Amino acid sequence: MAEFTFYTVAMSRGQISRWALHEAGADYEQVVFDFATRPDHFTDINPMNKVPALVHHHGAHDHVITEAAAINHYLAETHPDAGLLPDTHEKAAYFRWLFFAAGPLEQAVVAQAMDWKVPQERVGMAGFGSLELALSAMESWLSDNDFAAGSRFTMADTYVGSQFIWGLRFGSIPEAPAFRAYVDRVTNRSAYSEANAIDAKLIDEG
Amino acid sequence: MAEFTFYTVAMSRGQISRWALHEAGADYEQVVFDFATRPDHFTDINPMNKVPALVHHHGAHDHVITEAAAINHYLAETHPDAGLLPDTHEKAAYFRWLFFAAGPLEQAVVAQAMDWKVPQERVGMAGFGSLELALSAMESWLSDNDFAAGSRFTMADTYVGSQFIWGLRFGSIPEAPAFRAYVDRVTNRSAYSEANAIDAKLIDEG
Repeated sequence: MAEFTFYTVAMSRGQISRWALHEAGADYEQVVFDFATRPDHFTDINPMNKVPALVHHHGAHDHVITEAAAINHYLAETHPDAGLLPDTHEKAAYFRWLFFAAGPLEQAVVAQAMDWKVPQERVGMAGFGSLELALSAMESWLSDNDFAAGSRFTMADTYVGSQFIWGLRFGSIPEAPAFRAYVDRVTNRSAYSEANAIDAKLIDEG
Repeated sequence: MAEFTFYTVAMSRGQISRWALHEAGADYEQVVFDFATRPDHFTDINPMNKVPALVHHHGAHDHVITEAAAINHYLAETHPDAGLLPDTHEKAAYFRWLFFAAGPLEQAVVAQAMDWKVPQERVGMAGFGSLELALSAMESWLSDNDFAAGSRFTMADTYVGSQFIWGLRFGSIPEAPAFRAYVDRVTNRSAYSEANAIDAKLIDEG
């Protein structure tokens, strides 16, 4: 049995975590669902009935992990030799932008796509601000730094990078030179191409 | 100079990270803003102009960290002797629920409070599902486990716990025995009381 079981759907956020599996060099087997249906027992693994979900067969334990950003960071933690964890001076930026992309940025992209507006008097309650503000924070960082954690690729880029790959592709994030250059940097990796080819083939066959 | 500078507003999400500072036993000084105004130069620290923000004066470097969940985890990483990091078998649940609370749960609570509905045909785009589904996932976990990472308190509980403390207090999360018992467990800590007393005093004086 492989060390990890990866539950996914070819055209889904699962692609974010497949990229991480290949960056880490993880020993995994996949269980691929189609978009609309999941077996009933999948809610035992993820009560949200969402992919991606990862099970780590770890000694006598099966650890379930969900949420793409959490899965990707967990893979960096469990594969320290892959060099994807932040070093001491990269940690602040690594966790800052990983949680930023999984929290405020994700919320702002979805709110914009759904045309949801935050009333002015409730701006404090909705901590994510606006898409403009969230993108301007990232644009400022990515103009001064090549990657999420600073000057080199880390696991944070598989998640933060995916937000920009998908956002620019579907138009949910507007074009900016700093975003386009960042996407070019993070996708220029063999693990990205490998992972992408697997999902592209599944989509073609599907 | 203290090792950390903590930028906050007394009645804000800053309370979540003050709790973490006290759990970690961090050496910090505070800069307290009032609710409505921040000095212009604060956007140099956080372009989102949001609190909490933390600066780690680390050797020759000043590392900025934002997003309450990221700040709290960073404090656990920089204070390993405080015992707030997950062990090997706790890591999957620790990161799963930390990112769950900062992502889907936060999104679902805000969407419900704002009365935003996801059209059925776009459920895939809005990955957070519904508040009922997100709460049911957490209720199931907290019925079987005392804490986010399993059987003991870790730094994840300062963030996940805060979602439930505030949610039950303001009614944005409905009462459930598992949530109430969890709130009782996590608030029964001296670091919580200490941090809370500081912000309560600031609010009284404000």
